Amino acid sequence: MELTSFQSIIAQYKAIFLDSYGVVVNHRGMISGVPAIIEEIRNKNIPLRILTNSAARTPILQAEKYQRRGLSSIQPSEIITSGMMAKMFLSNKIKSGTVAYLGTTQAAAYIIESNLSAIPIAQVTDENRADISAMVFLDDEGFDWNFDINATVNLLRKKNIPTIVANSDKIYPVTNNDVSIATGGIAQLVESILGREFIHFGKPDSQMFMYAFEQLPANLNLKRSEILMVGDTLHTDILGGNKFGIDTLLVLSGNTTKSSYETKIRSTGVIPDFISASIVT
Amino acid sequence: MELTSFQSIIAQYKAIFLDSYGVVVNHRGMISGVPAIIEEIRNKNIPLRILTNSAARTPILQAEKYQRRGLSSIQPSEIITSGMMAKMFLSNKIKSGTVAYLGTTQAAAYIIESNLSAIPIAQVTDENRADISAMVFLDDEGFDWNFDINATVNLLRKKNIPTIVANSDKIYPVTNNDVSIATGGIAQLVESILGREFIHFGKPDSQMFMYAFEQLPANLNLKRSEILMVGDTLHTDILGGNKFGIDTLLVLSGNTTKSSYETKIRSTGVIPDFISASIVT
Amino acid sequence: MELTSFQSIIAQYKAIFLDSYGVVVNHRGMISGVPAIIEEIRNKNIPLRILTNSAARTPILQAEKYQRRGLSSIQPSEIITSGMMAKMFLSNKIKSGTVAYLGTTQAAAYIIESNLSAIPIAQVTDENRADISAMVFLDDEGFDWNFDINATVNLLRKKNIPTIVANSDKIYPVTNNDVSIATGGIAQLVESILGREFIHFGKPDSQMFMYAFEQLPANLNLKRSEILMVGDTLHTDILGGNKFGIDTLLVLSGNTTKSSYETKIRSTGVIPDFISASIVT
Amino acid sequence: MELTSFQSIIAQYKAIFLDSYGVVVNHRGMISGVPAIIEEIRNKNIPLRILTNSAARTPILQAEKYQRRGLSSIQPSEIITSGMMAKMFLSNKIKSGTVAYLGTTQAAAYIIESNLSAIPIAQVTDENRADISAMVFLDDEGFDWNFDINATVNLLRKKNIPTIVANSDKIYPVTNNDVSIATGGIAQLVESILGREFIHFGKPDSQMFMYAFEQLPANLNLKRSEILMVGDTLHTDILGGNKFGIDTLLVLSGNTTKSSYETKIRSTGVIPDFISASIVT
Repeated sequence: MELTSFQSIIAQYKAIFLDSYGVVVNHRGMISGVPAIIEEIRNKNIPLRILTNSAARTPILQAEKYQRRGLSSIQPSEIITSGMMAKMFLSNKIKSGTVAYLGTTQAAAYIIESNLSAIPIAQVTDENRADISAMVFLDDEGFDWNFDINATVNLLRKKNIPTIVANSDKIYPVTNNDVSIATGGIAQLVESILGREFIHFGKPDSQMFMYAFEQLPANLNLKRSEILMVGDTLHTDILGGNKFGIDTLLVLSGNTTKSSYETKIRSTGVIPDFISASIVT
Repeated sequence: MELTSFQSIIAQYKAIFLDSYGVVVNHRGMISGVPAIIEEIRNKNIPLRILTNSAARTPILQAEKYQRRGLSSIQPSEIITSGMMAKMFLSNKIKSGTVAYLGTTQAAAYIIESNLSAIPIAQVTDENRADISAMVFLDDEGFDWNFDINATVNLLRKKNIPTIVANSDKIYPVTNNDVSIATGGIAQLVESILGREFIHFGKPDSQMFMYAFEQLPANLNLKRSEILMVGDTLHTDILGGNKFGIDTLLVLSGNTTKSSYETKIRSTGVIPDFISASIVT
Repeated sequence: MELTSFQSIIAQYKAIFLDSYGVVVNHRGMISGVPAIIEEIRNKNIPLRILTNSAARTPILQAEKYQRRGLSSIQPSEIITSGMMAKMFLSNKIKSGTVAYLGTTQAAAYIIESNLSAIPIAQVTDENRADISAMVFLDDEGFDWNFDINATVNLLRKKNIPTIVANSDKIYPVTNNDVSIATGGIAQLVESILGREFIHFGKPDSQMFMYAFEQLPANLNLKRSEILMVGDTLHTDILGGNKFGIDTLLVLSGNTTKSSYETKIRSTGVIPDFISASIVT
Repeated sequence: MELTSFQSIIAQYKAIFLDSYGVVVNHRGMISGVPAIIEEIRNKNIPLRILTNSAARTPILQAEKYQRRGLSSIQPSEIITSGMMAKMFLSNKIKSGTVAYLGTTQAAAYIIESNLSAIPIAQVTDENRADISAMVFLDDEGFDWNFDINATVNLLRKKNIPTIVANSDKIYPVTNNDVSIATGGIAQLVESILGREFIHFGKPDSQMFMYAFEQLPANLNLKRSEILMVGDTLHTDILGGNKFGIDTLLVLSGNTTKSSYETKIRSTGVIPDFISASIVT
């Protein structure tokens, strides 16, 4: 498939959804040229949303982080995280008790904003275990892997409680050459040890796309075919967009590279409508 | 958990979603007493929808089948199938070519209604293979397992094309004691042989719930908390309803039985809001 | 890695183990030139054994088949099949009852030679089910896939009995371009449907290598380093030989081809000591 | 199945193989009464071997540990570890370079005794990476999970080298109620992240059984039916013994308990010849 310039197709759409990592930012920070492109989209009065598989921070903190990195116009309401989907589930389905979590204190805001108490898994004891009503995998940081993964296994052997994976991504790039195991990778280890399947949130599930779609200005009365999803990962961004019925653009600035994209598209059968080197081309 | 009478909670909801197999019908046909319950729901002016993981027949044919079995009031527009989700994907994403399928001619209507040509996998030849643009697993009947599963493996080894599983259920009951491998089980065999993951439709993905929700009368202006999903399977009906944010009722008239439900709820962590023996209690 | 001529290294070894399919025969029959090579090995007084993942026929019938195809010197005692390993297990561990099987009548000889009764799965009924003491997956032929795979699932849902996979291979080539799902692929489908793991026989498990090693003439007093395993499949022949501690030669006349071997060796980390185009080079 | 007294059947056998953890020792140390039973076996002149899925320490150190705990008669030559199988593989197949490992310095003796250099994964750098010729998972201790699991993933993304799992057990008990993820669990996480399958050693593979069998005194001329394997885990000890063709005794003093053994035997189809509460009964 031939590469298309992202800028040349913007005007065909009435709303644009962007993945964050590998599209807007990478391991070094904001991708060079992105703020200008975002302004170009805003100048065309095209609503944009960022759909990110992450529960590391709330949209307010995520927006502040983007702003510090030069994306001054971004608003919290434009950011949809898989953590928000997990939060809605907790709000709807966990009526009482304390929620144990793996992740940072910052990520635990998703639990606390569900009006539930939150404690890190390291603080679960024989005394307070009876009160634990759910377990959430939020982030791969903020805890000691040497102890807390085993503590999670043992909590879940003793208590059969709803267990939520707020970000199902298995790895993420940390340098040009290196990756780190992500929340979803740790959750999968625990699932495999226990022989259980947890409740997963994030793309490619239709939920985040639906949420973003419903939050678009009602007066625009948009059809799905008027929306473009832009992402760097075939099995989350592109598959999810394809299933939701919106157009999809694969960028080669993250997980999928110039040398691998043709093989990956062939081997997965997940076919984007367009391919660009990045959103700044 | 204690059992609740379905009839005693109907009035709490402004819309009701029902799974089909194990809730409305079973391997012997219409579950005794169901038509009367459906009339009771209608008399309360509560909209109902049937959400079924099936691509065996279109809603029109499915409605006729219900009507023949005594559910005279059911309308095609009240039936949402996973096959409809697959059809929308085909319509949106497959622009040309012929779609190969495993299933009955009746099921192939989902492809033909997408304005695509359909041929059973048995008719794919060296001559017409170049024209095949997608593969769909529709049903476990209508083809010869001795030849056509291998033919599917070989087509997909030669052509990297979008491959769609229009019903991801792995088994279904055929008598009180026996099950049959369903479409999703056959698809999983082929995925495992090829080392590929196909594009799956059906509960627990949010898509069918969203579609049903969007098709409810707009003037009712329903909130999700006003809707009840009723199903017999924890990891499709109940997990899907829980994730979509609606209330859930597990019935013990199908896949989940009186002797197994407590163990299954504990071992999966998928917890319904209510449990009933069936919808006729 | 560079290719080596098989003939040039024969003399380095005091015994040679050959895989059958992809090494000695292929889908068209005996590979051209193989009988002459086998004679050359015999002229050097080097014992040879054929180690094959197959339970389709006993060594006596397998030897007759080779002889009909031009390998006149081969003896049943030179053929070691995974079916023989399954037979030893049945002899040792199943003391009574009838063994149900998927496969041909010819393959069922492995059960009958264990002094057990054998019936095809299609003949299991409500009446005789109580007497079934084990289930064996023997071959992918000799039964009707439309009915008998489901019958196997239902037998094993009703009876918890030792279940044996006498050949774990998942696919085999049937033409230059096409494959067929093999016994191990069918077994894996049933394992996945039931959530159980069966008892598997065949390479890469050390068992067949050990059996072949123990049957070599005792007076030769061979060390493992004096034996060469020749095979066309990395994860059975080469991994098994490597783990058993004998030298390994990968041939490119079957599952692994000239265009794929370097990628496969890199991606698996299973590294043969030598690589040849075939044993006739 | 009824329970048998281990002592009452000892005399039926001419050699006895014991698993270590859950049979001879548990998380508190030597199981009370075991030294007396071992002496009883010795007094009957029955050779015994300990077959343990462990690469934490060499047989010499393992024997010293048993001796410190009161099993004074045990000899290093009576201990067969999965680490020894990995060591033989390294000796046979890795001809040069440095072997990276996850585990303790003590465990790395298995690499060094193969006449290879060993470095912990934490010490692999851009400079010395070119020299790494294999990777070994030895133990779940001796490294920092926060960094070294990711370092392993990244090494194996950059280098396609033989990767060995010297102990495939996924969990082990650390108290009456708690387990810890074992070497095989960590390895499985890395396999899943990379989409690769490593080379695994340990029961139920026949290799350790074969090694133990071959090291028995030759003058005894033992048949397999004269040997008893005693273990606490169905899918390693009992399945491995059953496949090797020796008799098997399940003890309920470790992984398999009085309350779970009947369900586990039924659900796995792995059937021991005898069951005892422990070896001291």
